[in-house]
Amino acid sequence: MTTTELTEQIHFKKSFLCIGLDVDLTKIPQHLLQLEDPIFEFNKAIIDATHDLAVAYKPNTAFYEAYGIKGWQSLQKTINYINEKYPEIFTIADAKRGDIGNTSSMYAKAFLEDLNFDSITVAPYMGKDSVEPFLAFENKHTILLALTSNEGAFDFQTLNVDGKELYKQVLETSKTWKNAQNLMYVVGATKAEYFAEIRKIVPDNFLLVPGVGAQGGSLSEVCKYGINAVIGLLINSSRAIIYASNGGNFAPKAREEALKIQSEMQEILNRK
Amino acid sequence: MTTTELTEQIHFKKSFLCIGLDVDLTKIPQHLLQLEDPIFEFNKAIIDATHDLAVAYKPNTAFYEAYGIKGWQSLQKTINYINEKYPEIFTIADAKRGDIGNTSSMYAKAFLEDLNFDSITVAPYMGKDSVEPFLAFENKHTILLALTSNEGAFDFQTLNVDGKELYKQVLETSKTWKNAQNLMYVVGATKAEYFAEIRKIVPDNFLLVPGVGAQGGSLSEVCKYGINAVIGLLINSSRAIIYASNGGNFAPKAREEALKIQSEMQEILNRK
Repeated sequence: MTTTELTEQIHFKKSFLCIGLDVDLTKIPQHLLQLEDPIFEFNKAIIDATHDLAVAYKPNTAFYEAYGIKGWQSLQKTINYINEKYPEIFTIADAKRGDIGNTSSMYAKAFLEDLNFDSITVAPYMGKDSVEPFLAFENKHTILLALTSNEGAFDFQTLNVDGKELYKQVLETSKTWKNAQNLMYVVGATKAEYFAEIRKIVPDNFLLVPGVGAQGGSLSEVCKYGINAVIGLLINSSRAIIYASNGGNFAPKAREEALKIQSEMQEILNRK
Repeated sequence: MTTTELTEQIHFKKSFLCIGLDVDLTKIPQHLLQLEDPIFEFNKAIIDATHDLAVAYKPNTAFYEAYGIKGWQSLQKTINYINEKYPEIFTIADAKRGDIGNTSSMYAKAFLEDLNFDSITVAPYMGKDSVEPFLAFENKHTILLALTSNEGAFDFQTLNVDGKELYKQVLETSKTWKNAQNLMYVVGATKAEYFAEIRKIVPDNFLLVPGVGAQGGSLSEVCKYGINAVIGLLINSSRAIIYASNGGNFAPKAREEALKIQSEMQEILNRK
């Protein structure tokens, strides 16, 4: 999917919501556990109930790997289901991969080609040759970790490197890499003022934003500083939506929560 | 496995060789492709031919994920085979994972508990709460990326942060984390002099060292600066050993290459 198509979807749905499919068998409605593939059945119900309110879904691979081969089957069925039934949806493999060049190529092939995700999150620590193999895929997107939303973000990402924070150096350096037009960035919502600084460095790229809501970030503040001409934001929400209820009504309850966020987004888009 | 047991194995085998099981179906002997699980059959033959010369095996997960569910089955069979037949071997999941706390816990469970690896490689960019869930497992080891052996290592890892390189800051900060005694570090062999500096910061920890041989690092130079009282080094070799031949004699040829390195290690250990 191109970013132009993504922006079109955002305007069509009046939403830049991404729903994180971080499925934990201990948290989903227990009646699903008797089905053959509870994780896929859960995802399917959540996706069917929310697909018109969200432009993106983001399974975090850890939650699937935790269930071994069965988990990988659930991941494969989930991405296939989205790609077949809702091809207008932007899909993100939240995998945070990154390795030396020939090894990153294997990850890129696995997620962008075989599983056919539109994008994958990638860690920057190993530098250029660990990221460029992901960037080589046309109309696919590499979402580089810049400033994450967790406490540990302040251990290294905000350290001062030659007069600027490391995450800013990551943003700047990454712009020089081959096929940099395929880059998006992970930027946590924890401090909205950071978005003003970040937009000076990457005015045009999409930002994937975790940490709104549960982790304390404000949607309107993030949008104030972060929205650009192509909107350029994907706001992720996982637990607040998918675990809104663990009863038989979990899917309509998830829709209710998604609708609250989408309504707020619609207002923001209308004001622009 | 404890580090004391690992050091005992090193002295017993006169080797601190780690063999990287980075299996690419286009590079293995083509007669294996007609078998049901060529990757596992390849690994099994390599392991059987070299287990007395190596103290560790390190499958890189990218090479297994690239083959989807079949790849995960091969990975599972490989680690089970090692754990059952050669329980004295130290096993490393070269996965380079790292995510926010609750998500890292899922990865840690998947690799250290379910697959039952002795250790896993982890990326430091997301900081303390992304690494501590791995450190929580007793007698398991978290091998943190410090200074990698690829070109991109010089993009961020060697940047100057408050008067010292970022990788040194990673080493120092990680020492303050909970269960830091379970840390090992990835340090590339590309510049042996770095090991002197690194040993000032982490005198006691094991270092996993890629980049000897193929990537240009010298074994004797690395040992000169890197060996400590418990030896404290695992030198990785992948392609030079496992792809020594792609004919019917690939396993004995792999043994020959492993033996060359082990002999050099034996001399180094004898001189100490």
